Amino acid sequence: MDNFTFHNPVKLIFGKDQLAALPGEISTYGKKVLLLYGGGSIKKNGIYDAIMEELGKINAETVEFSGIEPNPKLSTVRQAVDRCKQEKIDFLLAVGGGSVIDAAKAVAIGAKTDTDVWDLITKKERPTDALPCGTIVTIASAGSEMNASSVITNWETKEKRGWASSFTYPKFSILDPTFTYSVPREQTAFGIVDIMAHVLENYFHHASNTPVQDGLCETILKDLVKTGPGLLHDPENYQYRETMMLNAVLARNGMLNMGYKGDWATHDLEHAVSAIHDIPHAGGIAILFPNWMKHVLDETNTERFAQLAVRVFEVSSEGKSDYDVALAGINQLRAFWNRIGTPEKLSDYGITENDMEAIADKSAAAKPEYGKFKKLTRQDSLRILRASL
Amino acid sequence: MDNFTFHNPVKLIFGKDQLAALPGEISTYGKKVLLLYGGGSIKKNGIYDAIMEELGKINAETVEFSGIEPNPKLSTVRQAVDRCKQEKIDFLLAVGGGSVIDAAKAVAIGAKTDTDVWDLITKKERPTDALPCGTIVTIASAGSEMNASSVITNWETKEKRGWASSFTYPKFSILDPTFTYSVPREQTAFGIVDIMAHVLENYFHHASNTPVQDGLCETILKDLVKTGPGLLHDPENYQYRETMMLNAVLARNGMLNMGYKGDWATHDLEHAVSAIHDIPHAGGIAILFPNWMKHVLDETNTERFAQLAVRVFEVSSEGKSDYDVALAGINQLRAFWNRIGTPEKLSDYGITENDMEAIADKSAAAKPEYGKFKKLTRQDSLRILRASL
Repeated sequence: MDNFTFHNPVKLIFGKDQLAALPGEISTYGKKVLLLYGGGSIKKNGIYDAIMEELGKINAETVEFSGIEPNPKLSTVRQAVDRCKQEKIDFLLAVGGGSVIDAAKAVAIGAKTDTDVWDLITKKERPTDALPCGTIVTIASAGSEMNASSVITNWETKEKRGWASSFTYPKFSILDPTFTYSVPREQTAFGIVDIMAHVLENYFHHASNTPVQDGLCETILKDLVKTGPGLLHDPENYQYRETMMLNAVLARNGMLNMGYKGDWATHDLEHAVSAIHDIPHAGGIAILFPNWMKHVLDETNTERFAQLAVRVFEVSSEGKSDYDVALAGINQLRAFWNRIGTPEKLSDYGITENDMEAIADKSAAAKPEYGKFKKLTRQDSLRILRASL
Repeated sequence: MDNFTFHNPVKLIFGKDQLAALPGEISTYGKKVLLLYGGGSIKKNGIYDAIMEELGKINAETVEFSGIEPNPKLSTVRQAVDRCKQEKIDFLLAVGGGSVIDAAKAVAIGAKTDTDVWDLITKKERPTDALPCGTIVTIASAGSEMNASSVITNWETKEKRGWASSFTYPKFSILDPTFTYSVPREQTAFGIVDIMAHVLENYFHHASNTPVQDGLCETILKDLVKTGPGLLHDPENYQYRETMMLNAVLARNGMLNMGYKGDWATHDLEHAVSAIHDIPHAGGIAILFPNWMKHVLDETNTERFAQLAVRVFEVSSEGKSDYDVALAGINQLRAFWNRIGTPEKLSDYGITENDMEAIADKSAAAKPEYGKFKKLTRQDSLRILRASL
């Protein structure tokens, strides 16, 4: 292991009917709440009404900010920051998945300063304070509910930036698996890909002696491979929704990568793709990840690929070289993601050879070299992108 | 899973030379530090000098309180509380393993009130404040460095009480595996038993749908079974010390039992034993745990025992009943703990048939019924104790 610091102060409140904890949790922070949410599905599935009822119990004064989009935009964040200042908001309540929570984290640091929030995100200036924020999770996927990370897209400069601050840990996150029952099939499949990709980004590292972290990674991956297809057929299965929700949290709360840093090249490359074409993040990840794996796999680094193949996908190693075992594992991952109906090719989103150079430029502009397991350059980006067409 | 709340704000600072973080971590809390430690081994192995050097960098005014014993005593805690009040201490720095850290947690709540600390431990009164506390771990075992729990023994009433408070999470814990190099062979073996027992106490529950938690439990157990004997032969092996230190933390930081409560009957019974005879905690646990397992195992609850046997001890289930697989697993656990040289019988500590009734009385006085996986009574205590003679 490498040296590490782990400090995650988020209070996780997990299970059926845990929304009842909301009034008690919020009341320590103030009366005036900005409720942030997305496209309005929470008004159809009853979650909005249930939240308003709980907020009513403490006579919270609630201001609404809806319409936060997937791949949340800087322009949206800026509007919400202005709203916080106008309305003198005490507390941010983010209801949704990664996009809404990521946006809320940016709003939190933007609302307490006159500095433009993009300067904070890009680290030109450092945040020194933030509005407190709580989350109510309605999609198990990003795991943003139990970390300080956020991704915001600036469409003026076509930049998608991942960032974090010690000020942006949610104070609490309420995770009721029943709140994810109405997540559509495609979004559920994207959630499975997203969680697996977070685990896989961590799994590829060169630190020695990580048997316990490996075991946790493999346990989460195996569970998703085992239960994912069943969940897609039975979306109101409490047990499947519950483990998926827990897996999403564990994949991104910092526990998995105690003692090493993961690769994250595929996330960087996907950010370049979706900064040019506004495609679903997990769709991009599903397309790119197996191709990143095939691109970086070589005779010198087969070990972790082979371990993944054997332990997660139960590839038999009998009579096979490590390289062949590794390759079989990658093919199994692709087959699994195909089986749950996520896209395999960039062309599924209308991305063509004509877009390759622009995406590679974007990738190189954000980071000339990227990836920790294997350092990649613009030329590598192009090769992975073309293999993904 | 059952509903749960997880909230663990401890900052874990892990790895070689991480003591360098100490001045920065302490300086936010004040200048006057009470350094708590045990029998003085830290003066022999250089850890004391290294700490004093770091404290010197921030001109901390350090008061020492040494001699905290294994199974820390209420009388010792009371002395340290008085010392805090006399010296107007700002911060507690606990250097040691579970005993020193457990004592420091009690001192922390006792130092901020005129209420006697035993009334706080026994919940006659509620703590409302605590001195901040940090830890430097020198024994990987109890995992007290990343939770709010503590066990204190009152020798006036012969009661050993486990307790916790939201005020007693350490602010930070520094875990340098090299600080455990000089832990004697017997203490290292006890640490392995202690960590395994914490995992096993969690493992036996009746909640459904805990595949990820099971996987993490099994991963930790497998790692200790695999590396424990090697570590005992090679006590300065950094990798073995490092995973053991991480396993100790993960076994007790609340992650393992997200979504259920473990059994903890064996710990309750061991507390009754060591309230009468001051034996090493892990020695008592090593003796009692397999006998608890055999006592509660019956045809209706073989599943978790059999899962343990197959997944951790690689017992073949071919041609065997679940009950026989379960039993084979229990025997393997006993054999493993024997192999690392921990005691098998209460008589190894001079405990005889003459002590049985007194220990059973103590157990029944503390809790007339105990254990969550299977409810036990005084009669069960006697049977497990006699099987352990």
